[in-house]
Order: sequence, then C-alpha cells, then structure tokens
Amino acid sequence: MFTRDEPIMVAVSGGKDSLALWDVLIEDGYRTAGLYLDLGIYEYSQESKAKCEAFASARGQKLYVERVADVVGAPIPDVQRATRRPTCSACGLSKRYLMNRAALEHGYPVVATGHNLDDEAATLFGSVLHWQTDALSRQSPALPSTHPKLVRRVKPLYRLSELETAGYSFLRGIDYIVEECPFSKGATSLAHKELLNRLEEASPGAKHNFLFGFLDKARVAFERLESVPLTECTRCGQVTTGEICAFCKLADQVRRRA
Amino acid sequence: MFTRDEPIMVAVSGGKDSLALWDVLIEDGYRTAGLYLDLGIYEYSQESKAKCEAFASARGQKLYVERVADVVGAPIPDVQRATRRPTCSACGLSKRYLMNRAALEHGYPVVATGHNLDDEAATLFGSVLHWQTDALSRQSPALPSTHPKLVRRVKPLYRLSELETAGYSFLRGIDYIVEECPFSKGATSLAHKELLNRLEEASPGAKHNFLFGFLDKARVAFERLESVPLTECTRCGQVTTGEICAFCKLADQVRRRA
Repeated sequence: MFTRDEPIMVAVSGGKDSLALWDVLIEDGYRTAGLYLDLGIYEYSQESKAKCEAFASARGQKLYVERVADVVGAPIPDVQRATRRPTCSACGLSKRYLMNRAALEHGYPVVATGHNLDDEAATLFGSVLHWQTDALSRQSPALPSTHPKLVRRVKPLYRLSELETAGYSFLRGIDYIVEECPFSKGATSLAHKELLNRLEEASPGAKHNFLFGFLDKARVAFERLESVPLTECTRCGQVTTGEICAFCKLADQVRRRA
Repeated sequence: MFTRDEPIMVAVSGGKDSLALWDVLIEDGYRTAGLYLDLGIYEYSQESKAKCEAFASARGQKLYVERVADVVGAPIPDVQRATRRPTCSACGLSKRYLMNRAALEHGYPVVATGHNLDDEAATLFGSVLHWQTDALSRQSPALPSTHPKLVRRVKPLYRLSELETAGYSFLRGIDYIVEECPFSKGATSLAHKELLNRLEEASPGAKHNFLFGFLDKARVAFERLESVPLTECTRCGQVTTGEICAFCKLADQVRRRA
C-alpha cells in the first residue's frame, strides 16, 4: 500500500473509520496529513469538520480543508437538486475528484481512506447486483496509479469490520461524529449493509468470504474485461476516460441550474 | 436451445415448473419424453412419481423412470447419511449424472429442465457469495455439449418467475405436487430465494437484472478463467474432469457405509 518513507494523505470525514485510520498511521510513525472535504451539508458538515480539526490540532498534524462548493459551484444539497444522479453518487464523484487533485497539488503520492470490511462488502454487493463490470474491475484495497496525474488510493482498514473500527476508536478515546450523513437515509448502500448483516448472522464469516473470495478469485476476471485508455480532461486537466471528465460535467450541470 | 426436429428429454420432478415446461413443449409440437428420477424420498417421491405418470399417460407421452437407489446403491435419505455433502448437493450430483446417462442411453441429444428465474437467480447468488468460479462459468440457460458423451442441458423457463410458472400450471389445470422436498427445509438456496425476494420488493426487477446482467456482461469473464479438459471416468465411462467421477466416488461412499 505504501512505504515507510512516503507521505500519506488521509481522507477524513470526522467519522470513526477515517479518524481511527489516521490515528493508527500517526501512532505507527508515518508522515501524514489529513484532508477534510467540506461538503456543505448543514450542521453535519460543521460538526464533522470540527471533529477533524480538533483531532489534527491535538496531535499536531496538518489538516487540509477543501470546500466542495468552491470547486463544483455549490454545496452538496444544491448539487443534488441540479443533477439527476442519486445524492451519494454526485457526492462520491466529487470526493474522489477532490481527493486526487488535493494529493497531487500538495505532493502526496497516495490517498488513504477509512473504508472498512462492511463498506467494501456493501459496495461489492451493489456492483454485483447490477454486474457493473467497470466498478468490479476497480474494486480493490489498493488501486495503483495508472497515470502520472492519478495518485494511488488505498484502504488499509478493509479487513476490519465496522464493529472493530468502532471498538478501536472507543478504546483510543477518539472523539468522532456519530451521526450518519443526513442524505444517507434510504441509501441503497445502507440497505445492502443490512442485508449482508443478515447473511452474516445466518453464516458467520459470510461477509469476509464474499469480499475476499472476490479479491482472491474473481477480480482478475474483470480486470481482463476492462482496460480503458486514460486521457486528460480538456477542461480541468485531471484524468478521465473521455474528453471532458465527469466532474466537469457535474459542475456544468450545477452552473446551469444556479 | 434445440431445433424443431430434435427429440427432447424433459426432466420432470412432478412439480409445477417441470410439468409446465413439458406441457408447453408438447403443445408446441416438440417430440419429447419425460424422465422421472425416483430419489426414494418416502411419500414425497411416491406422490411426485404418481403426478408425472398421470401427466404422461393423459397426454400419451413416454415417461422414463430411473431409481437413484439402483445406481448409487441407496435412496437419497441413506445417501445423505453416508456422505458429508449437504443433502441437496449429493442429490443434485446424482440427478445431473443420471439425466445425462439416460439421455445418452435413449438417444436424446438434449435434456430440458424446469429451472425458472427464481431458481437461477438463487443459484447465481449462492455461487457469488463464495465466488465459486467453476460454478459461475457453468451457469447458463443453455450448456453446450463439450464432449461426445455429454448431452446439452437447457432451461427454457429461465426468464419466467416462480409466480409465472405457477400461474401457467394453474390456468392449464396441471396437477402437480405442491409440497417441497422434505430435505429442502433450511436449505441455503431457499434462504437465498427469500433474500432475493426482499431485494425484489425493494426494487422491482432486481432479480431479473441480477441474472441477466450476469449472463450478458459477466459470465464471459468466468468462462475465460475456467477451461478444464474432460475425460471419461475409468469406472463408469461417463464424463469427468478427473480419473474417477464424482458420482462413482459418491457411490463408493454409500457402499462402504451400507
């Protein structure tokens, strides 16, 4: 995922997973900085930002803050109204874009996110239900850089369950935001998590076997199916598979509706 | 799946799906014969056999009957006790073996089974949870003959839901066995069907998209991963990937425990 000497940009949301990850990396002596993406989601964003700032300053760490509204043209609640995408989809697109851009700008070769086993299994489940072969080919705990303007993305906590990261955060006294994003209510990813929890209850280990069976045996099959040439967006210069990247298209939509 | 002129062996269990399939094929003027595999499961087998015999004689069709006990050495309840395999697994193995053997013996190039959309989606779901790449490569509504001693296997009803085949059987006045196999209680395939039904309720079309997305986009990926040379079992002469086929090994286990 990364070497001892590389600086790591840790994407933090203020939740238990990303702050637990940052905590572990600091404790293990890695050179890190946090990146907080301010989505502009009312009190939820204000509170989660405050948690990240308190965490960073208590540990003497650098925290970069980027406002989605400054780049996409409006905060996520307005982005939601301007696009037909589901809220989580537009938000996820914006986050991936800004993470990569911030890491490039500040000289970090790798971005680490706090995704845990439950997150990864639910994402895989969603991709499998629709057999989204492109998403399946990209589902990995360590995405390499396939273009000079694409930093690596790693998920060091992907082996740990939600319960385990919560337990760690509790035992380490990490002050994190407990509330979920208000837009996540009714999100299919939450429904899929519930469903996987039921499977797990019926046969313990099911979640782990589902994710790791995929990574060990099936992922390679989709890698062969998908190999798309990467270019640079003619608008913003970031990496894309088309002419104008999905983020610039989203920003266009937001601008038209503003 | 088959031409107008080919004789089709229809594997019938006495249930709604396989009898509906046989009914459609007869109505459409295909040359068919039924194959009933007597699993020796107490009253369940007696009743389901009677339904098949009544169906065949009312329509003047040939029905072949094979007793699992004659070939594997004991009826399924005893096979279950002699092997560590789950009941449905040993039974499924025996059925696939006997279907192919009977079709070869009686000169049918293709066996049709009554599997519906719900069956196929549940099987796919089970294979995906464990990423059984061999099973995934073989999941298809029309398996070709890849060896002179392997007949084709087709599932003409794979686009229809359980509700639709039940509706058809009801409207056509088909007298089928309503009880499920007594050994299917607690079977994971039934648990998976329930789970898929819940997904379907939350987003109608989910089952169809899951199965057809796989067939359209993902199956090809697994076909490339799996390509095993086929040989003939040194014991029984049927097709296998090893030296002695799984069915002969099962029969050995039954004999040792008898």
